[in-house]
Amino acid sequence: MTTPSIDVLYDTPRAPNPRRVRLFLAEKRLSLPTEVVTIMDGSHFRPEYRDKVGSFHVPALGLSDGTILTETVAICRYIEALHPEPNLMGTDPLEKAVVEMWGRRVEFQLLLPIAQVLRHGNPAMAVLENPQCPEWAEVNRPRVVAALDWLEGILAQTPYIAGQRFTIADITALVAVEFMRAIRQALPETHTATHDWLTRLRAREGYVE
Amino acid sequence: MTTPSIDVLYDTPRAPNPRRVRLFLAEKRLSLPTEVVTIMDGSHFRPEYRDKVGSFHVPALGLSDGTILTETVAICRYIEALHPEPNLMGTDPLEKAVVEMWGRRVEFQLLLPIAQVLRHGNPAMAVLENPQCPEWAEVNRPRVVAALDWLEGILAQTPYIAGQRFTIADITALVAVEFMRAIRQALPETHTATHDWLTRLRAREGYVE
Repeated sequence: MTTPSIDVLYDTPRAPNPRRVRLFLAEKRLSLPTEVVTIMDGSHFRPEYRDKVGSFHVPALGLSDGTILTETVAICRYIEALHPEPNLMGTDPLEKAVVEMWGRRVEFQLLLPIAQVLRHGNPAMAVLENPQCPEWAEVNRPRVVAALDWLEGILAQTPYIAGQRFTIADITALVAVEFMRAIRQALPETHTATHDWLTRLRAREGYVE
Repeated sequence: MTTPSIDVLYDTPRAPNPRRVRLFLAEKRLSLPTEVVTIMDGSHFRPEYRDKVGSFHVPALGLSDGTILTETVAICRYIEALHPEPNLMGTDPLEKAVVEMWGRRVEFQLLLPIAQVLRHGNPAMAVLENPQCPEWAEVNRPRVVAALDWLEGILAQTPYIAGQRFTIADITALVAVEFMRAIRQALPETHTATHDWLTRLRAREGYVE
C-alpha cells in the first residue's frame, strides 16, 4: 500500500496527449522534473527511450519504485491521488463516473477523429503512422465537423462539459479543439457556446501550451 | 455526496462492450435488472431508446437519481464503488493507475483494431458504421496480428495482464480475443501463454457470455 513519489515526466511539445498532462498539472499548480522527448524524428521508437520507459508511449511518468506509467488518463489519475486539490476527476462515486464518461466521450468522439485526419492525411506523419490510410482521413473529416456540432449542443446546456465545474473532460476537449489547427479545421463562428467556453478556459491561470 | 442505486442495465448480446460489463458483474456475483436492446436492427438509434438513455450508446446504466451512465469503464467504475469486492480495478493509487493503464492499452491496441476490421470490413455492419472504409479494415487486420504477439509477450511474463491477479484489463482482453470469431481471426497455436491464460479465464465462475 505504498504510494511511490513521482520522479520524472516524459513529455513532448505539440502532441495532444502530453499537453493534456501539462494542463492537468498546471491546474494543480504542480511542476514536475521533466525530460523532453522528440517524437517527430521517431526518438520514442529508439532503444534509448524504450529501455527507460518500456514502451514508445509519450507522455510517461517515472515513479520512485521504478514503475513507469503511461496512458494519459492513468497518469492524471495517479497525479490526482497524490495531489487531490483542486479536484479534476470527481469527488464522489457518481461524479467520478460522470467525469470519466464525459472524458471518454470527448476522447472518442472528438479527439480521436481529429488525430486520425492528421495521422492518416498528412504525409509528414508517416513517421508516426505506418501504413497511412488516406481514405480513413477522409472518413474522419466530416466526423470532426459532426463532433463540433455535438460539443456545441453540450456547451449550450452546461458551462463545462461534465456539468457545473471545470474537469479533466474540459482539458481533453480544449486540447482537441486547439489541436484542430494541425488539420486546418476552424471552429464555426456560429458555435457561440463553444467559443464562450474557449474564452473562459484560455483565461484560466492553468492555461498553458 | 449521495450515491444513487442502480435501477437498470441496458444491455445487448454479442457486442463486446456490453459483454465487458456482464463479465464485470459476474465476477462480483451481481445481477442487475436488465433491459435488452437490439442493435443490429439499429433500435438504439431510434427515439424510443434515445429518449430514455440520452444517447445511442449500449451498455448504459440507469441510476435512481435519473442519471444515465454510458461508457463501459465509467459504468464499471461506478459498480466497483458500490460493490468493492472482489476488487477488479485496483485497491491503492498505484494499482489503480497500473490497472487503468493496462486496460487502456488493451482497448486501444487490441480491441479497437478488431472492432475496426469488423465494422469497416463486413457489409452487414453498415447499419452501425456509416460510411464504411474497407481500406481501413485492411490496415487494421495486421494490427490485430501484431497485437496478439504483443499480448503473448505480456502473458509470457505475468499470469494476468496487469500483474499477479485478475482485473478488468483481463476482462477487456478476454472479450477482445473471443470477439475475433467475428473477424475469423484465430489465436495462433504458438501463443501458448495466451492459450493458457484463456483456459484459466474460461474456468472462472465469473465466465459468462
